[in-house]
This record gives sequence, C-alpha cells and structure tokens, in this order.
Amino acid sequence: MKIIDGGINAPIGFEAAGIEAEVKYKNRKDMAIIYSKEPCTVAGAFTSNVVKAAPVLWDKDIVENEPFAQAVIVNTGIANAGTGKEGMSYCEETAKKAAELLNIPVKAVLVGSTGVIGAQLPIDRIKAGVEKLVVAKAEDRESGTNASKAIMTTDTVNKELAVEIEIDGVKVTLGAMSKGSGMIHPNMCTMLGYVTTDADIDKAALTKMVKEDVVDTYNMISVDGDTSTNDTLLVMANGMAQNKKIVEGTKEYEIFKEALHFINETQAKRLAGDGEGANALIECKVINADTKENARILAKSVICSSLTKAAVFGKDANWGRILCALGYSGAKFDPENMELYYQGSSNSMLIFKNGMGTDYSEEEASKILGESEVRFLVDMKMGDATATAWGCDLTYDYVKINADYRS
Amino acid sequence: MKIIDGGINAPIGFEAAGIEAEVKYKNRKDMAIIYSKEPCTVAGAFTSNVVKAAPVLWDKDIVENEPFAQAVIVNTGIANAGTGKEGMSYCEETAKKAAELLNIPVKAVLVGSTGVIGAQLPIDRIKAGVEKLVVAKAEDRESGTNASKAIMTTDTVNKELAVEIEIDGVKVTLGAMSKGSGMIHPNMCTMLGYVTTDADIDKAALTKMVKEDVVDTYNMISVDGDTSTNDTLLVMANGMAQNKKIVEGTKEYEIFKEALHFINETQAKRLAGDGEGANALIECKVINADTKENARILAKSVICSSLTKAAVFGKDANWGRILCALGYSGAKFDPENMELYYQGSSNSMLIFKNGMGTDYSEEEASKILGESEVRFLVDMKMGDATATAWGCDLTYDYVKINADYRS
Repeated sequence: MKIIDGGINAPIGFEAAGIEAEVKYKNRKDMAIIYSKEPCTVAGAFTSNVVKAAPVLWDKDIVENEPFAQAVIVNTGIANAGTGKEGMSYCEETAKKAAELLNIPVKAVLVGSTGVIGAQLPIDRIKAGVEKLVVAKAEDRESGTNASKAIMTTDTVNKELAVEIEIDGVKVTLGAMSKGSGMIHPNMCTMLGYVTTDADIDKAALTKMVKEDVVDTYNMISVDGDTSTNDTLLVMANGMAQNKKIVEGTKEYEIFKEALHFINETQAKRLAGDGEGANALIECKVINADTKENARILAKSVICSSLTKAAVFGKDANWGRILCALGYSGAKFDPENMELYYQGSSNSMLIFKNGMGTDYSEEEASKILGESEVRFLVDMKMGDATATAWGCDLTYDYVKINADYRS
Repeated sequence: MKIIDGGINAPIGFEAAGIEAEVKYKNRKDMAIIYSKEPCTVAGAFTSNVVKAAPVLWDKDIVENEPFAQAVIVNTGIANAGTGKEGMSYCEETAKKAAELLNIPVKAVLVGSTGVIGAQLPIDRIKAGVEKLVVAKAEDRESGTNASKAIMTTDTVNKELAVEIEIDGVKVTLGAMSKGSGMIHPNMCTMLGYVTTDADIDKAALTKMVKEDVVDTYNMISVDGDTSTNDTLLVMANGMAQNKKIVEGTKEYEIFKEALHFINETQAKRLAGDGEGANALIECKVINADTKENARILAKSVICSSLTKAAVFGKDANWGRILCALGYSGAKFDPENMELYYQGSSNSMLIFKNGMGTDYSEEEASKILGESEVRFLVDMKMGDATATAWGCDLTYDYVKINADYRS
C-alpha cells in the first residue's frame, strides 16, 4: 500500500468540485459534488440516532435498494434534520436537478447535508449550486481539494487522503474526504465521510467490509459524546481500474480491506484530533482485555471522560480520572490487577500498578501530556483482546464554539 | 411537611462539627463529624463504579453487615481512592481513633473521603483532626453548618436542609448535608450525601426506601457524565423522636418517604445547579413516555449532552441539539409525533412539533435560556410515564476548574 498525493477524485473516472452557493453564509465554499463516469457499487453506514436527517433517509434507501449510484451532492451550513416532509422533498429536488444535468437516474444521486439542525434548505440556491457544481466538476487535484474544503464546517484542517494498492497486478486507487468536528460520537460512522475507488468489487463484499470496519474506526472516536443526526459514510466503487472483481474469501479482498481500514482509521483519527477547540489527539489503547467488546467499552469510556479531557488540556497527570472512567465504563475488572501507562513519542511511563499510583515523575508525565498526540495504554491482564479509541482534549474553545455556533 | 432552618444536626440527639485539619490545604475546613447519642439504623447507596474508594468499601460493609452505626468522619482534599491496601488501612485507623474517643465500636464509625484520586491520606493529621472533631461536636445550628461547609470541595454553595413531619402525632425531624460538584453522574447516589433523622424506623423499611428513591433523585442528575469512585449516600435514624417504629405498608411509611424524597430531590437539584462552573440549572422533564425507564433515559440524555449544555450557556435556542440528544438516547420514538417546550418562570413556548420547528420567537426563547433555572418539557405522546433529570450548563469555568484542579 502506498500513500499518494490526492483526494476524493484520485481514483480513475471520478470528478469533483467545491463551490460557493451561499446556503447559509457568504464567501465560503459550501457545496460539493463527487461524480463518477461509470455507475458505482455503493456501501454505506449511517447514524443510529432515532432522529435521522432527511439526506440520511434518502441515501440509506439508495444504498439498500438501488443497483448503483453515480453522484453525490453535499451542502454545509444547514443539516436538513428536524425538517419533516418539507426537508425530505428538498432531497428529492436536489437529486432531480443533478440527475437531469448529469443524465443519470434520480435514484443514482446521493445527497449529504451538515450544519444547523432545524432550518429548511434554501432550495433555489441549492439548485443553482448544483448547476455550478456540474459545470465545475473535474479530475484535477485542486478540484478534489475544493470538494473536501466545501464540506468543512468547524473543521480547522482539510481531511483528504488517497492510497494505491495492487490487486492481481492491477493498480487500484482509493480516495477519501471527511469532515467533523462537533456532535461527533459516531454510532455507525462519522458525520460525513466519502471514499471513492476505481476497484471492481462485489456489492456484498463491499457492504460486509464497510459494516465491519466502522466498528473499529469511526465508531471508536468521540469529540463530545453527541451522536449526530447526519452521520454518513459512503464508499463508491466504479470498477474502472479493470481488476478482476473482488469477492469475499480471497487474498484480494484482504488487500483491499486493509487499504480501506487504513483510510477509515486515518480519517477517524483526524476527525478526533481536529475536534472542536481541540489542542491534542487523545488515544487510549486497551490491551489484554477479556473480550473485544469490553476492550472497546473501556477505551471509549476514557476518551469520552470530560474530566480526563480537561486534565489533558491542563497537562495535569491526574490519572485518577482515567481509572475512574475505566471503572464506570460498565466493564468488570480488578483495579488491583491492571496497569496504566502514559506514552510519549519517545518514552513510556508506568503510572498505576497494584491498585496504586507508582512513584513516577510529574514533570515527565506533564511533558507527555503536552505532546500533540497523547497516548494512554491500559493493560487489563485478563485475556488477549485489544481495542483503541480516539478523542481530544476539552478546551475553552470547545465551549466558545458551541455557545456561539448558531448565532 | 415543614421546611425548617437547620441542617445535619437538626434532628434530636445529633451533634456535628467541621474543623481545619490541613488534609491537603491550609486555612479551610476539611474534616467533619456527625455523631448520634444513640445508635442509628443506617441505610446507604454507593457508587456503581468498579473502582470503589476505600471508604466506600468500609461503609458498605457496615451498612450491610452491622446492626447499627453511630458516627461519620469525613475528610475533603483526598479521595482515598486508587490507594490499595494502604488506603484501606487508613479507614480502619480513622474509625479506631474515633471509636476510642467516642467509646463506641470501631464498626459503628462510618468514614467518607472526597478530593483527588490516588494520593494517600496524611493519617497523623487525620487522627489529630478526629480528636478536634470529637471535642468540637455540638447540637447548635452553627456546628451543623460547619460540618456541611467542611465537606465542600469545588462547591460554591453550602447545601444543607432540614424538614419536620408528624408521625402518629409525634414530631419527627430530618436533616441533610451534601456536596458536589464535579465527577457528578451518580449511579447509586451523589458523591457525598448525609441524611439524619430522629425517626424510629425499621431497617428493612429504610433500606427499601433509600434504594427506591435514589433512582429518581441522585441518579437523575449529571454535571459531567463522570461517575465518581466515592459516591456515597447515608441515611441515619436514631429513633430519639420516640415515634411508633415505622414499618413498610403503613401511612407513616409514606409520610416519611415523602419527606425523604423531598430532601433527596432538593439536594440532588442543588448539586446539579452548583455543578462545576455552572451558571444555570437545566431541568428536562419527559412526559407521556411509553415506559418509566425510557422516560428516564430520554430526560437524562438531554441534560448530559455537551452541545445542549453549551447552547444554554450561550443562551442559544438551538433545539436541534435537544432533538439530537433524545434521538441518540437509545429509546425508540417517532420524531414526527412529539413536542418540545421551553419553559420559563412565567411562560411556556412550543418549539418543535410535527417533525419541525415552530415559528417561535428567538428573542423570547433566548430570554428563557437566560434564567437561572432552564426547563425543557418533552411530550412523547406514547403513554403515561414521566421522569425528570437535572444538569447544568457547560461553561469556560468548568474547563478552567478541571484543567487546574489538582495543581
């Protein structure tokens, strides 16, 4: 696997664009398109929130019931959630407009929205935006970046990625773009994540792969514990690399899965590290747990703890808060028989053992907490299950961003 | 039921004191005693955290296995959690010292600690503190307040309360003191809560009552989602009012239960409203839910949502965040068939109906969010179950307090 310079339109046959449509604010890119010259096999994962945004319902129907899709239209500024039947009709109008201009079926157009919940889309500006997007879409590097930038809301970092793999001697490319960065506690996947590939892959195989992979990637991150109404991950495969079709149970399936996992994990970590107001990415790795499920529960409890997050912001080696978060996670364990380490870029410190803190150096510990990636390693000494979760510190800026967000 | 001026030593036969013992900081009251002239029937509720502080284990043993208790010694500054066998031995040493001086059994002395996790108690200063407490304990009003102030940590408000009821023509008094205000997401009860009464009550009756009542009071509040290692609620009844012993299934049981519920609910709301850094108490009342359990889950999800809490801080009527929190709570419902109201001290506004926001006045809504008690009413229209949960807004000061707390 090779990481290459590129984004959502790096695979063969994909075009992208990002433009200004004034959905909610002026002078910023706020609509994006992904278009494939050939129909794509699509798999997806969507929010588990009972309140699902209109575009989530629209996309879910296409992924589950249509043979293929060929384009995605995304807007930021307004989430089109909590908008009732009117909101649902705007998904259809958006897709219809794109379908007409692209000469593809209405039900081959996926839509995505992110932003404020409750407001209705300015459908005329959205339709005008679709016209601009169809004209602007292109294969060049800059167009991919424009699309990725257009889906950012409070994100401070553009999150795109592309990798190359070899399937049966044929070069296959995967590209991705994702956005966070608040209301992030995915329970299916992140707010908006798109992955494209020119691989030829069986729909059942792709669906299984996506379903399995989100559990250890997007579902293991949290910025603020709030599971969004709009969480959507879509993986689109157009087959233009002309490899032998990938099916389950083959070496090629594993090679492709590894590349997809790398993309999903990298993008998930970027979402966590760029959480609203965050200074640092927090990683909690749990090893030797009794079950995989408990490993996940323990790791996630630590990165979700407000007190642990605030202690990282304050560079305070207050390990009691980590111990406390493990303790209330719901997983059973013996606090007398586990170990906690702080891990810096160049060192590892044993902090807690035999039910008590060790005689560690506060100064050294504080130094680790000052790094841009703060890592906690928890050894449960119960079995051989492992899981990793990612979050970010809790800062003044998180409060500022979210006290002001809508106004 | 009559609210009276008084606190933990208001009932007949109870003495209290709060003194400076320099457990961690100088020049502040940091140790308290509650002492009863007669042995007390005791019921309690303790943290569900797997990591239980030494005093929690000590008290749990007494409440479950001893016939009575007669005194409580509490310190702040150090939580005596994550302290292994050494920490456990300090509970015993503290109790032994008090037992000697008070001439009561060691296993009649309950202990409580709150503060930083992981540090060991300075046992010599603790024992010196016990000596001072035994000398200082008294029945007067000020001594009760001193005890209540001595258990405060980041609390900004002293939380004591007393009520009088009549049982079979006999006056019975209940007194209470409680402390918050971070690591508050009780799952049995709050961090430290003490209730005294001169009622004569059967142990089984008291135990049942406490167990049932915490579910709708302390367990329905959250400041930061972190369930402490030290959560303890103790209710001590010394029988000195000389009423006919209260047993289950009587009118007297209901009268006493109502008074205890009032105390627990009032103290729980005070803990939420005085959450670390809080400007406002947030109340979410869910009505007409399908089950009591779902009503609790829905109400608690709203008051735990970081984004909702930050929006209240910003006085932003961002109801989409409330809808979102209801949606990811885990309870199933139809977003098209529920209603959300904002309730001020003098008005009630319908904000969401038929799956969409109503045409409400932003100005009026913002005014409600500026009150010191912010109330959300959610009508699920599914059944007749009701629950209420309490939390607080998320402010810069919460981050400040918890980035700095230990240093």
